[in-house]
Amino acid sequence: MYPRKTHWTSEITPELHGKEVVLGGWVWELRDLGKVKFIVLRDREGFVQLTLKAGKTPEQVLKLFSELNREDVIVVRGVVEASKIAKRGVEVFPTDLWVLNKAKPLPLDIWSDTPDLATRLRWRSVDLKRPRNLAVFTLSSEVLKEIRQVLYGERFVEVFTPKIIVTSTEGGAELFPVLYFERVAYLSQSPQLYKEQLTASLERVFEIGPAYRAEKHNTDYHLNEFISVDAEAAFMSYQDVMDVLEKITRRVFTAVSKHEAKLKEVGITPIASEISEVPRVDYDEAVDRLSGMGYAVRWGDDLNVEMQRALMKHYGPAYFIVNYPASLRPFYTKRREGDKSESYDLIINGIEVASGATRIHRRDELEEEMRKRGLDPKLFESHLAVFDYGMPPHAGFGLGFNRLITAVLNLDNVRHAVLYPRDRYRVEP
Amino acid sequence: MYPRKTHWTSEITPELHGKEVVLGGWVWELRDLGKVKFIVLRDREGFVQLTLKAGKTPEQVLKLFSELNREDVIVVRGVVEASKIAKRGVEVFPTDLWVLNKAKPLPLDIWSDTPDLATRLRWRSVDLKRPRNLAVFTLSSEVLKEIRQVLYGERFVEVFTPKIIVTSTEGGAELFPVLYFERVAYLSQSPQLYKEQLTASLERVFEIGPAYRAEKHNTDYHLNEFISVDAEAAFMSYQDVMDVLEKITRRVFTAVSKHEAKLKEVGITPIASEISEVPRVDYDEAVDRLSGMGYAVRWGDDLNVEMQRALMKHYGPAYFIVNYPASLRPFYTKRREGDKSESYDLIINGIEVASGATRIHRRDELEEEMRKRGLDPKLFESHLAVFDYGMPPHAGFGLGFNRLITAVLNLDNVRHAVLYPRDRYRVEP
Repeated sequence: MYPRKTHWTSEITPELHGKEVVLGGWVWELRDLGKVKFIVLRDREGFVQLTLKAGKTPEQVLKLFSELNREDVIVVRGVVEASKIAKRGVEVFPTDLWVLNKAKPLPLDIWSDTPDLATRLRWRSVDLKRPRNLAVFTLSSEVLKEIRQVLYGERFVEVFTPKIIVTSTEGGAELFPVLYFERVAYLSQSPQLYKEQLTASLERVFEIGPAYRAEKHNTDYHLNEFISVDAEAAFMSYQDVMDVLEKITRRVFTAVSKHEAKLKEVGITPIASEISEVPRVDYDEAVDRLSGMGYAVRWGDDLNVEMQRALMKHYGPAYFIVNYPASLRPFYTKRREGDKSESYDLIINGIEVASGATRIHRRDELEEEMRKRGLDPKLFESHLAVFDYGMPPHAGFGLGFNRLITAVLNLDNVRHAVLYPRDRYRVEP
Repeated sequence: MYPRKTHWTSEITPELHGKEVVLGGWVWELRDLGKVKFIVLRDREGFVQLTLKAGKTPEQVLKLFSELNREDVIVVRGVVEASKIAKRGVEVFPTDLWVLNKAKPLPLDIWSDTPDLATRLRWRSVDLKRPRNLAVFTLSSEVLKEIRQVLYGERFVEVFTPKIIVTSTEGGAELFPVLYFERVAYLSQSPQLYKEQLTASLERVFEIGPAYRAEKHNTDYHLNEFISVDAEAAFMSYQDVMDVLEKITRRVFTAVSKHEAKLKEVGITPIASEISEVPRVDYDEAVDRLSGMGYAVRWGDDLNVEMQRALMKHYGPAYFIVNYPASLRPFYTKRREGDKSESYDLIINGIEVASGATRIHRRDELEEEMRKRGLDPKLFESHLAVFDYGMPPHAGFGLGFNRLITAVLNLDNVRHAVLYPRDRYRVEP
C-alpha cells in the first residue's frame, strides 16, 4: 500500500529544506542526463522537480525511473532540498517511489502544443490535465464559493427546484422534451417561476444548478446546458438586488486578481484586477453614447456584444445597463414610466453575464403583460394562482456562471469554462 | 414606496426596547379586542406581535387593520417595547403600515390543521409558508453549507458535470429519455463516471446537483429526481473518504442540534444531538448480529430499512456498514479478499443516506468486473479509454441529500424534505 500524500506540489518551498514529504501525481517530464535524472511531477496545484542521483538515490528507485512514461501515476517519498538551480528554488530527492498506474502515449498533446478545440473536447478528460484547465476549474470552484458567501451574508437560503417541468417558463418553445413515464415533460430553461413563488415563503432564495435551452444556434457564447446562478428576494427592488450582484462582482474580481500571476503562467490574462464600483448606466444614455460612436442603434433595440464592448471604454470592465424598454424584457418584469422597466443586465468584458429586474407581484398586472406578449394566462394558471395568496414585492437575477468565468478570465469561447460542454452537435463525452 | 426591512422577526428582542424598526412579512393572525388589536406578523425567521391601541396608534394604521386578511403582505414601521404579557417578552407598536398585497382565503390550512400530503403538495408554494416547512428548508441550506465547508477544507474542488448523457452509468435501463435535437439522449442517474475521470486531473472533486432514476416504484424514500452530493478523490481509499464523510456527519449533527429547540416548536424531533464518532461495522458482523436478533438474513443479502433500524440499538444513530459482498456492488467497486469489496454505506436513523467505495483504477480489472455482471465493455469504451492515460487510485461517495435531511430530522417521508417533489405520479407543481 502506498503512503498518503502529505503535501501538494505548491506547498513544497525552500523552507521545507531537510523535511521528508510524500507527493502524488503524474509524470509530466522525464530527463535522463546519465548520473543525474529528473522527474517533473505534476499534481493539481503545480509541479515539483524530483532529482535522482547515482550513489544517492536508492537502486530500486533508479530502476523504476527507466520504466517510467509521461502521465504514469506515481507516489513518491523523498527529502526536500533548497536549490539554486532548480525551478522555484527547490527539489525533492526520492527515497521511495510507487508506480500506481501506467499511461499509454496520450491521444493529444498536453505539454507544448494546444490542439484544436474539437480534438480537446473529444478527449476532454485527458485534456483537463493541461495546467491551464486545472487553473480554470480550480478558480471556478473558488468563484462559486465567493458567490455563495455573498448570498449567505445577505441571508439568502440555498434551494433546489425541479428540472423536469410541464410548462415553459417564459412561453417560448425552445425546450428539450423528456419522456416522463407515460407523459411528455420538459427540461427547465430557468427556475424563474419557482424562485418567484418561493419568495412568498423563504423570502430570499438562491439556486445554482443546470438550465436547458434547446436553441439551435451554435455560437461561442451559447450552450444548451449551462449553470445558472439564480437569486430572488422578497421586499427588494432591482436596485437592492443590483447591490447584491455588485458585491458578488467585486468579490469575484478580487478573487481572480489574487491568482493573476499564476493565471498568466498558464497563458490566461484575466481582464482586470480589483474594481471599486460597478456603474449603473441608463439604457437611454447607453443608446445615446453608442449613436455618438457611430453605431446604428435605435431606442428599443437590444445591444449586441460589439456595442457592449465599445461601452467598456466609458464604464470600465463591469457595468450595469438599467431600465430597458419593457418590450425587450419578459412578461414578469415590472414596468416604470415611459415604456421602460425596472430591469438590468450586468455586462462584464462586453459579455452579458446576468439579467435581473423587479418582478410584477400582482396577478392582474401579470396577466395583462402576458396578453401583451400573446401568452395565454390560462396556461400559467398554477403559477398565477400563487399570486392570490400573499405574493410579496420581489426582485432577482439570473447569472450565467459559465459566461461569468469566460468573461473574467478573458476566454474566447464559453466551452473553455465548462468541463463537458453540451451544444448543438455535442452530447458526449 | 415602502421602507426596507431593518430586522427579521427573530431579531426583535426586549433589548431593543424603545428602538424604531421596520419589519416585513405576512399577517399570521388578527385579534380585535376593541380598544386593543393585535397582528401577529410572520416572516421566514419567526413571529412578532404588533399591538395597536386606540389613542396610541395612528388613525390610518387602525383603519388599515380593519381591512386586513390573513396572509396579506405588510411592511410595518414601529417601536419595540419589552412586555411581560406578549409572547417572547416583546411587542411592536406600529407607527406606519403598508399593505403591499392582498391575499384571498388560502386553499389549505397552514395555521392549525395539517392537511394530507397530496393536498399540501398540490398547493406546495402556499404550504411552504407553514413554519415547519420554513424550518426544514432554512436548515437544509445550512446543512449544505456545512457539507461544502468540510469538502473545501479537504481541498475538494466543486464541479458540474452534464445531466444530459448518451449512455447509462451503471448499465441499468431505468433512464428518462430526452429528445436532444435529432437524437435520443438520457438524464444522468449519477455523475459517477465523470467524477471518476476527473480524479485524473482535478484529483478531488465534488458535485451537488440533480440525479434522475426512472424507477417505477413509489415509496416513502424514493424520488425520481433527487439531489446527490457526489465526491471523489485521487490517492484516497474508502477508509479515507469515510473519514471525510464522518466529518460531514458530525458537522451536520452539530448544526441540527443547535436548532433543536426551534425545531421542536414546529413539531420536528431531530434524531440526536452531537455525536463523537460514526462506527464502522463489518458487513459480516452486521449479518451475525441480525441473525442473532432473529432476522432472516443470509450472507450475500442486502440489508433493509427494518434491519438497519434494528442495528441502531448497537451502533447508535449513525454508523457505517463496510466491506459488502462484491456481488452487491456496482462493477467499478474494488474487490478485497473473500468475495468482499472495499465498500460502505452510511446509515443514519435506519436510512441508507450514502454509499461509497474504493474504485477500480485499472482498465483490465474494470472490464473483467463488467463482464461478470453481463455488461459489454464496448459500450463503455469512451469511459474505459480514459483509464489508459494515467488513472490514479481513487475512492468516493454518493450522498442522497434529501434522504440525509429526512433522516436527521426524523421525517416520515422524503417528500417533506423536497420543495417540489418528482415521483411516479407527480411532475407538477
